[in-house]
Amino acid sequence: MELYLIRHGIAEDRSKYNRDEDRPLTKKGYEKTNQVAEKLLKMGIKFDLILTSPLLRAKETAKILQKSGLSQTLDESNDLAPNGQIKNFVDWLGKSLYNYKSESYLALVGHQPNLSNWTEKLVWGSNTNNKIIIKKSGIIGVRLPEKADPIGNSELFLLTSPKWII
Amino acid sequence: MELYLIRHGIAEDRSKYNRDEDRPLTKKGYEKTNQVAEKLLKMGIKFDLILTSPLLRAKETAKILQKSGLSQTLDESNDLAPNGQIKNFVDWLGKSLYNYKSESYLALVGHQPNLSNWTEKLVWGSNTNNKIIIKKSGIIGVRLPEKADPIGNSELFLLTSPKWII
Repeated sequence: MELYLIRHGIAEDRSKYNRDEDRPLTKKGYEKTNQVAEKLLKMGIKFDLILTSPLLRAKETAKILQKSGLSQTLDESNDLAPNGQIKNFVDWLGKSLYNYKSESYLALVGHQPNLSNWTEKLVWGSNTNNKIIIKKSGIIGVRLPEKADPIGNSELFLLTSPKWII
Repeated sequence: MELYLIRHGIAEDRSKYNRDEDRPLTKKGYEKTNQVAEKLLKMGIKFDLILTSPLLRAKETAKILQKSGLSQTLDESNDLAPNGQIKNFVDWLGKSLYNYKSESYLALVGHQPNLSNWTEKLVWGSNTNNKIIIKKSGIIGVRLPEKADPIGNSELFLLTSPKWII
């Protein structure tokens, strides 16, 4: 299966909001995410599910992706919050409809450094120190094996900031 | 400094040529490489040097990049041949003009599995088993540190097949 780990778009400054989780996307964040969504559509990608962090900037990013027609289904998961653990996500994935099917496409919308760390764990089995640079509205593409533990047995096929694809 | 590891374009079939090193690009390989070159130009990238494997399909790829205006300088290196070693390349780099300068941009045109393996060594210090998928005319972008051994201390910022950027 293919997993697209997408970082939320550019969000309003921390100083303006009491709670980090309430920060919405900026106009630029909205526009860039929209352009990324258009590119994914143009590439013929359809997600079986978009799973998002419950923080506002991630939810707004995920909604833009969904509204563009990339997925009929959108759900929230605490596993994708900044303190989320990949172990919990992989446990959930193993029990889900999407597990390991080679034709499954999932999008995760979340935060740094989680997206880099999760990618390193999926591909290399352990994570170092944020060696994968993913910009806001950027995408990491990871292919999970059909019949093996995804941790340490996945492949990296895409890493791009929005500017390369929009 | 930024290192762009670029895989040669689609080449003619092995059965048609006695020597693997004599295989030229196909028409499609030429066209896709040309489109990738145009994208790099559009991104404002200029290389201080394009260094290529001495095999024909790599040299042709490198020439397309150069002719498009991406670099004034093009050179061949046996380090980039299929049996080339990253250690030799890093030794050369350390003594070169380009070494560690944050403003240096280098393009390497070479082969698989070297490009994946070299990337893994630069970023994680060791390589596993071809966990980074790079298609023909695809690009890997690695940022090398200014003042540390590049092996294990570099960052990955780009991995894309041509279809995402052309």
